[in-house]
Amino acid sequence: MTHDAILDAIAFDPQGLVPAIAQQHDTGEVLMFAWMNRAAVAETLATGEVCYFSRSRDRLWRKGEKSGQTQRLIELRLDCDADALLLLVDQTGVACHTGRRDCFFRAARDGTLQEIAAPLVSPEQLYG
Amino acid sequence: MTHDAILDAIAFDPQGLVPAIAQQHDTGEVLMFAWMNRAAVAETLATGEVCYFSRSRDRLWRKGEKSGQTQRLIELRLDCDADALLLLVDQTGVACHTGRRDCFFRAARDGTLQEIAAPLVSPEQLYG
Repeated sequence: MTHDAILDAIAFDPQGLVPAIAQQHDTGEVLMFAWMNRAAVAETLATGEVCYFSRSRDRLWRKGEKSGQTQRLIELRLDCDADALLLLVDQTGVACHTGRRDCFFRAARDGTLQEIAAPLVSPEQLYG
Repeated sequence: MTHDAILDAIAFDPQGLVPAIAQQHDTGEVLMFAWMNRAAVAETLATGEVCYFSRSRDRLWRKGEKSGQTQRLIELRLDCDADALLLLVDQTGVACHTGRRDCFFRAARDGTLQEIAAPLVSPEQLYG
């Protein structure tokens, strides 16, 4: 199946990127936020495994390629302005490189940031 | 209460912006994706009503200022890299300017984009 119609509909920014929100499909947890380019979206749709674009490493970033904490794509959705993606996924293990289930583990409370979730695994276990 | 400690922790991009995901606090719906600058985050924390920064209008955008479809802030969370925000909100009415509950109403299915939600109100009702 070709995905050109979907890829062509996405309004990538001048750097060729689109923001992507990963949400656990059944619990609704917002797991992480990252970026994709056209090749990353194409690979994700073709393989069913989420692939992002790492701006710091300037290359495709197959989620879980080192840690094994992959994201299986359940559904890709596009927003009204076509410039943001919502990825409904099934997360294996933890989404955050800190070993936490999701990346949004600091909450603004009482004028400070408070950690509201602890790592479930250590980064050493994830990355060796 | 001052929120400087929170504001100082956010890694705004070179344009002074940070991506923000709005999620309905009780249902888990991802409502929309937008951007905030430091002033928008400061106002949101101070007032408890979500204020974004509109890149197209180059000014603060108090969500619902025209439509009445405001977002009350329940909690602001920061991700591991401090460069993305998750806003847990209580959405009045609909989040999307098209009149839909959320902005992610197009799903990639069978090689095309399919609309999976209909407007609940007309844009004319929202914006006159």
